[in-house]
Amino acid sequence: MERRGTRVTTDVARVVLRRLLPSWRHPARVVVTAFATVIAMGTLLLLLPAAAEPGAQTGFVTALFTATSAVCVTGLVVVDTPSHWSTFGELVILGLIQVGGLGIMTIASLLGLLVARRFGLRLQLTAQTETKALDLGQVRRVVAGVVLISLAFEAVTSVVLAARLGLAYGYDTGQAVYFGVFHAISAFNNAGFALYPDSLMRFTTDAWICLPIIVAVVAGGLGFPVWVEIWRRRRGRKRWSLHAKITLLTTTALLVVGTVAISAAEWNNPETLGGLGIGGKLLAGLTHGVMPRTAGFNSLDIGQMESGALFVNDMLMFIGGGSAGTAGGIKVTTFALLAFVILAEIRGEPTVHVMGRRLTASTQRQALSVALLSVGAVVTGTLLLLTFTPFGLEAVLFEAVSAFGTVGLSTGITANVSTAGELVLTALMFLGRLGPITLASALALRERTRRYELPEERPIVG
Amino acid sequence: MERRGTRVTTDVARVVLRRLLPSWRHPARVVVTAFATVIAMGTLLLLLPAAAEPGAQTGFVTALFTATSAVCVTGLVVVDTPSHWSTFGELVILGLIQVGGLGIMTIASLLGLLVARRFGLRLQLTAQTETKALDLGQVRRVVAGVVLISLAFEAVTSVVLAARLGLAYGYDTGQAVYFGVFHAISAFNNAGFALYPDSLMRFTTDAWICLPIIVAVVAGGLGFPVWVEIWRRRRGRKRWSLHAKITLLTTTALLVVGTVAISAAEWNNPETLGGLGIGGKLLAGLTHGVMPRTAGFNSLDIGQMESGALFVNDMLMFIGGGSAGTAGGIKVTTFALLAFVILAEIRGEPTVHVMGRRLTASTQRQALSVALLSVGAVVTGTLLLLTFTPFGLEAVLFEAVSAFGTVGLSTGITANVSTAGELVLTALMFLGRLGPITLASALALRERTRRYELPEERPIVG
Ligand SMILES: [K+]
Ligand SMILES: [K+]
Repeated sequence: MERRGTRVTTDVARVVLRRLLPSWRHPARVVVTAFATVIAMGTLLLLLPAAAEPGAQTGFVTALFTATSAVCVTGLVVVDTPSHWSTFGELVILGLIQVGGLGIMTIASLLGLLVARRFGLRLQLTAQTETKALDLGQVRRVVAGVVLISLAFEAVTSVVLAARLGLAYGYDTGQAVYFGVFHAISAFNNAGFALYPDSLMRFTTDAWICLPIIVAVVAGGLGFPVWVEIWRRRRGRKRWSLHAKITLLTTTALLVVGTVAISAAEWNNPETLGGLGIGGKLLAGLTHGVMPRTAGFNSLDIGQMESGALFVNDMLMFIGGGSAGTAGGIKVTTFALLAFVILAEIRGEPTVHVMGRRLTASTQRQALSVALLSVGAVVTGTLLLLTFTPFGLEAVLFEAVSAFGTVGLSTGITANVSTAGELVLTALMFLGRLGPITLASALALRERTRRYELPEERPIVG
Repeated sequence: MERRGTRVTTDVARVVLRRLLPSWRHPARVVVTAFATVIAMGTLLLLLPAAAEPGAQTGFVTALFTATSAVCVTGLVVVDTPSHWSTFGELVILGLIQVGGLGIMTIASLLGLLVARRFGLRLQLTAQTETKALDLGQVRRVVAGVVLISLAFEAVTSVVLAARLGLAYGYDTGQAVYFGVFHAISAFNNAGFALYPDSLMRFTTDAWICLPIIVAVVAGGLGFPVWVEIWRRRRGRKRWSLHAKITLLTTTALLVVGTVAISAAEWNNPETLGGLGIGGKLLAGLTHGVMPRTAGFNSLDIGQMESGALFVNDMLMFIGGGSAGTAGGIKVTTFALLAFVILAEIRGEPTVHVMGRRLTASTQRQALSVALLSVGAVVTGTLLLLTFTPFGLEAVLFEAVSAFGTVGLSTGITANVSTAGELVLTALMFLGRLGPITLASALALRERTRRYELPEERPIVG
């Protein structure tokens, strides 16, 4: 009922996959293993002397941190990208970003297809080999669609950026194309890696650079399922799914709120928006309304922002972007669904309704679990960073949320958090990218199914 | 089934109450109105010239802030209690603390009794005049029990404190009794008001002062329903309710965690524990493990604590103490239930089980709503304080959580947050004391009951 179209379940393919992956019964473990493997390979490649500029040495933690940051499309860096890494090293990073971005989009889209009428995300993940197997055709269509949409956006963005860099800044053709492609891929994948030591701060008022990057960032952040629907509407499909409606509306709302809040907070700050003309203020305000969700480029100095603007950033970074896209955070749907649950509770309604649809108890519980486990991860990370570093709550919380939300913005402390701090951030990026639920499910070994019902009891709440 | 004993529903009493209170159909509104009225009366009393020391002037916002802080048993102050307020003023504050403490214990216990097998807290609140009326006998028993237990703990604590102040510090009898009674009432009601400008910092290593206060604080924070069960066990009742079990276990766990974490963070800080002997370190560590939940006395200088200790404080203050007691925060049951919900989600279990009992979907939704509305209130308050004050996130977040959790600890900025900041803190104390759900229910005017079911749909979460 939920999944239309022909289903060509190929037992052969499943058998092959099971041979290849002994833990295939637990897709969450497969996902974690796959990402860990790519990060390990990236670490090894970045450790090669050829990956660094002549004379530069790459330590193990630096390579691990950078590979994790790239694969998890975060963009936090402990060494300056253009001056530390050679062109080969930059290409490794670019490759890791592309693999990471395509990987998370594909995997999250496939897991989304597996979501069934059952309780508990873990059951859904393990349900695959039982009744809810994806057929190979579906897998192939998703992979093709993800690759297609990624390449399309990256190509268009590359062309605009390269043209601008060549025409307005005098880059020669090869350089313009290289810089255009790198930043286009980094933008669509919400990676936030830049080939400039100060990210986009030299382009603060250049709309021809900032706007294409903003469009690519937002496009990648909407998520593949939404793009599938946008595409289908061209062929006459009129009804939006609940997922697409929530994603589009919440994304729009957060872009407006973020842009207005950060512009207002920074309007007269001489270190950020204060010195710009009205056009520059609007462009940079828009850029910094978009980038916390969760691209991580910056055209203003985050370290000079007001406390209020940093706190708004914290919240935008935590919420993040759309599901099954390149953005991180708890996702806009999780955030919006929780708001609807609370609204129903306040109104005293027995069921939760969202735009004419009913929300199942299991969806509510998933949203709750994702949000609270994420709070737990950020709180734990913040506490560890406070312990291991000399920095105060403001900078440390920002860093922890940025890492967990795979954002990549920083007040400037990333390179100085000590090795322990770097490992904490690495763990947060990995956790934040794969999702606390996925990871927790993968780690949970006990599988208990209670067949009997216990008597219910109501403790006092609040 | 849930409520045993004879029920003497007196229609006469209900009719009388309805005449007196036109909004009786919405108990939440009655509660909010009652607290607001007491605060208004307290503000007027504190504005009387006789309430201040000769020569001292009391502004309106100062009186409002102090009355709210007392009624909501918070303990944040914008003027030094002993030097600003006359003995009459101190007695007004003491009266407001006692009325506030008894009020919230009674009301929360009665609302707890009203909790029925329905969805949505609001329905439960409005259900009273329909099927779930409390009989007068129940109300009378709860009020009598709350008063009895409060006076008992306050009396014993008063005696110990007065004896110590008289014997070891040379207070004359009248002074010793006055100081003993004031701090005993302030302690049991988790109010945190002190008659010393530096709270309990002169008693950092005096176990005869700190331990009785700790016991009173913990006793008040357990909540009336737990004390009823403890009392009944004396008469042979053996089985703990789920509520009592969760409250006792979580309280114990948080006391241990808080004491260990704060002691560890501060052990060598020369401005706090560093200069004390081992006995003093343990006592002060215990005191500061207890006080964030949510008494608000301090025997160490909070402003000198490490960032890590402050952050642990933030979390303990947010979680708070037991339901239907004098503590604030989201309550230990809310915290523990959410942990069990997440555990069930991770394990992939269709239902949530807690210590051999099943948790209904509506209880889960209540816990979620209480926690997230509280996060929303703290985040909003923090953002406003960041906007209105020159202080950074660390101090401001601490202040916001302290106000919302009705804790009363401060890094020292309370008196300097400007009038706007004081009003924000006043609102947070009021909101935090009455509970976001209660307030939101009281404010929600729409009552919609959908009789038909909408089709369900599953957006992607996380
Ligand atoms: K990023
Ligand atoms: K308090």
